[in-house]
Amino acid sequence: MRISELAAEADVSIATIKFYLREGLLPEGERSSATQATYRADHLERLRLIRALIGSGVSISQARSVLDAIDRPPTNAYDLLGTAHAATMTRTADAVDTTEAEKLVRRLGSADGRCDDVVLGAIARALGQIEEAGFQVADDVMTAYLDAMRRIARAEIAGVPTDSTEAAVKYVVLGTILVEPLLLALRRAAEQIAAAERFGTH
Amino acid sequence: MRISELAAEADVSIATIKFYLREGLLPEGERSSATQATYRADHLERLRLIRALIGSGVSISQARSVLDAIDRPPTNAYDLLGTAHAATMTRTADAVDTTEAEKLVRRLGSADGRCDDVVLGAIARALGQIEEAGFQVADDVMTAYLDAMRRIARAEIAGVPTDSTEAAVKYVVLGTILVEPLLLALRRAAEQIAAAERFGTH
Repeated sequence: MRISELAAEADVSIATIKFYLREGLLPEGERSSATQATYRADHLERLRLIRALIGSGVSISQARSVLDAIDRPPTNAYDLLGTAHAATMTRTADAVDTTEAEKLVRRLGSADGRCDDVVLGAIARALGQIEEAGFQVADDVMTAYLDAMRRIARAEIAGVPTDSTEAAVKYVVLGTILVEPLLLALRRAAEQIAAAERFGTH
Repeated sequence: MRISELAAEADVSIATIKFYLREGLLPEGERSSATQATYRADHLERLRLIRALIGSGVSISQARSVLDAIDRPPTNAYDLLGTAHAATMTRTADAVDTTEAEKLVRRLGSADGRCDDVVLGAIARALGQIEEAGFQVADDVMTAYLDAMRRIARAEIAGVPTDSTEAAVKYVVLGTILVEPLLLALRRAAEQIAAAERFGTH
């Protein structure tokens, strides 16, 4: 199909498609003349994926890393997860104290209190911001967070498909990133329901 | 204290403080001369809170709404939660189909399948992006998400302090917003631990 048909099918503007082509997110179509290129169904699929990633708050350069991981996957599902996480988290140069973060990771079930440094740093920074703001997470609430995340992760990882690497990559990368806005919105809905139960709505 | 001392105490630049003053996030200090103002301990506390909000990905205008809610709180804890949620979620003009989102809210425990429209819209949009990307959340994983969020919300709402409105406001507003980066980082750590358990690390 032509670029105009691709745009109509994916419901995006031609200018947006040209931007993704320039940024290397979408592969070039096959040249059919000096001024025209032909796009296939897999271009449309890739375009929808790019839209979904950007719509989930992933930056252009993070989207590029994610698409690279899908195109050139690591061989092990554990490394894959690391790639997906690294592509979508900010690695900062600031040294942060990770003592409390390591304690939480141990409570999550890691015997040696270790996970990827990017993730450990993200936990430490999140704890730092909570403390900075003068807020405290009560211990029973923290326990609920850890239990909840452990259950979620086990259900998610149990579902990683093992029949094809491509399927595993898509599952891990997209499941990590695209589900985040859903989880945060579900938490807010659950909070409203729990607040209505405790305080009434008037 | 002077603005330079406030900057040193909070570890931010004087330019940043002036920006927050111009944006109305930080109240003006008391004028002590034509060119100097004096700041108190509550300015420092407010400044730390602003830093924590901005650091959690809250925009300047969202931070203003959150601070307004803290300064002029609604009387009911349920309305408070709505204010905190509305201040930090994007209300879009796009009509979205909320049928699936309402089903999830009912599974969360709301008899009439209702929560605030902003939250319902956010769930619907998150589901739409997942579908757009060609990804599916398996039903047992979705059940794990709903169970986890229900547990988290009950623990959080059970802890809302009822002795002072100000304490309740701070708890609800800050607990909602500041905990989000922590939860997402804990989920990633839990995923890495679960992946290591299932696939090994080599």
